[in-house]
Amino acid sequence: MYDVVIVGAGAAGLTAAIYAGRKKLKVVLVTGPNIGGETNSTNDIQNYPGYEGPGPELMKKFWVSAKKWGCELLEARVLKVTKSKDFTLELDNGQKIESRTVILCYGRERRKLNIPGEDKFFGRGLSTCTTCDAPLFPNKETVVVGGGNSALEGALELSRIAKKVYLLHRRDKFRADEVTVEKARKDQKIEIITNHVPVEIIGDKFVKSLVIEEVSTKKRRELSVQGIFSEIGWETHTSMVQGLVDTNVLGEIIVDILCKTKTQGLFACGDLTQVPYKQTVISAGMGAIAVLEAYRYIEGVPATHEYVK
Amino acid sequence: MYDVVIVGAGAAGLTAAIYAGRKKLKVVLVTGPNIGGETNSTNDIQNYPGYEGPGPELMKKFWVSAKKWGCELLEARVLKVTKSKDFTLELDNGQKIESRTVILCYGRERRKLNIPGEDKFFGRGLSTCTTCDAPLFPNKETVVVGGGNSALEGALELSRIAKKVYLLHRRDKFRADEVTVEKARKDQKIEIITNHVPVEIIGDKFVKSLVIEEVSTKKRRELSVQGIFSEIGWETHTSMVQGLVDTNVLGEIIVDILCKTKTQGLFACGDLTQVPYKQTVISAGMGAIAVLEAYRYIEGVPATHEYVK
Repeated sequence: MYDVVIVGAGAAGLTAAIYAGRKKLKVVLVTGPNIGGETNSTNDIQNYPGYEGPGPELMKKFWVSAKKWGCELLEARVLKVTKSKDFTLELDNGQKIESRTVILCYGRERRKLNIPGEDKFFGRGLSTCTTCDAPLFPNKETVVVGGGNSALEGALELSRIAKKVYLLHRRDKFRADEVTVEKARKDQKIEIITNHVPVEIIGDKFVKSLVIEEVSTKKRRELSVQGIFSEIGWETHTSMVQGLVDTNVLGEIIVDILCKTKTQGLFACGDLTQVPYKQTVISAGMGAIAVLEAYRYIEGVPATHEYVK
Repeated sequence: MYDVVIVGAGAAGLTAAIYAGRKKLKVVLVTGPNIGGETNSTNDIQNYPGYEGPGPELMKKFWVSAKKWGCELLEARVLKVTKSKDFTLELDNGQKIESRTVILCYGRERRKLNIPGEDKFFGRGLSTCTTCDAPLFPNKETVVVGGGNSALEGALELSRIAKKVYLLHRRDKFRADEVTVEKARKDQKIEIITNHVPVEIIGDKFVKSLVIEEVSTKKRRELSVQGIFSEIGWETHTSMVQGLVDTNVLGEIIVDILCKTKTQGLFACGDLTQVPYKQTVISAGMGAIAVLEAYRYIEGVPATHEYVK
């Protein structure tokens, strides 16, 4: 029986692990192979106060601290969380673990295009992070898929590096801020193609082109590109805790200011919560709150109502 | 007219300044002389993930980043904040400044003993931070004043270093956790004196003794001590924003998960809020949230109800 199971090893989970270790809680961190989470995909962190440099290096520091404080690691995926008095977690390796409390902090996943070639060409011309990979395409032809801020800002970032940037959007209107859309419209290198969806990625070892289709006429054509950036948003997966948490329209887990979900003993923090700002320092702060609140719950100290709105 | 006035320069305020600078907001940081806030009083930070070392050094890194992002500094005290359409801040130097938004993050103050000798001997044997200053009293006689967790934990910490630790409490019962009280009772070096209050600090250049008084009989006696640790709690001052914020029974400002107070455009973050865990990484995370939410308010993007509980 654990005191705390932390599900996810990004900035939130690793911070929770550090604080749990310092409180001498019996804790295990359940995670996939990616220790460091979303912060790993940033090569130049400028807004985690006290640190400047590559994301993976910062996350390594987090992980080294967590280990120092005695964090136990279990590489597995959680299939189902249930609660009677305590929590039971079913893992994909067949194991079942029990815990007094659970902290959910496994982040979100980039939405997939679901077209042929997507898996084959991922990392071979197809990228889901313009900020990370734009520098790999100097003087190349590229396409950004999406209509939100990430897509538009990604296109602008790419236009400083690439020779050509197509911006492909399935609708007529963009969700992105109007100022950003205006900037993109004025950019000589960016060619906006609306009312089209991507249907297939073509290449041999690397991406050679993207087949696109006009939404109403179904007319297809091929864009010759070496780089494809998929910026079509995120998904938060919560089926494993269905019934135990409330979610918003984006599928994100609703927590209060102390990272409590609607189920006592179940906490959530970081990118998978309704806090709209997905930042390393915010996730780290929430990770600390979640585990300190879990500690209070475990120790049986009654929640002092005056603390919480 | 500023976009944001940040009041306070601890971990929360400096992080807010970094994020405000990155958003190219017109921002000023109004603060007393202590840049770094409460984190400065810790000499060995082990729980700000990514950093280990003295608090003041970490806060210097925060401040260097804030300056790099164009943060303007104004050394002054805010006397009054009022709101019509925007905010007006009256400063103790006679200046008035105007701003679209205000972020409150000036932390809290340690409560004072209000006895003769307190000001004279502060830093000369009188300390308000056991964790910081206990190492200065090896084999000395000391007294800790207070009855909460900080006082009891402070006494236990001191007993590993000092020759003798009096624990002085004005009541019969302790507010601290029973496990901690038990530990203190069992500690050979700790002598618990209940129902007494401190009435005067005596010394020449440094502390020589503390005069104490029995609460009911008013009988006085003198404890020969070289170190006095005042651990009698904190005060959060909010008179400058009276009417604009709600507070809890501890006088702390109530905010929602996005650091909003009850007044639109007025935000609060860090130690002065109702979040009971006063930690550098938590304050930093809240500072980022506050300014990103202030940015959304300034840009006039309507608060998407689905984000917020």
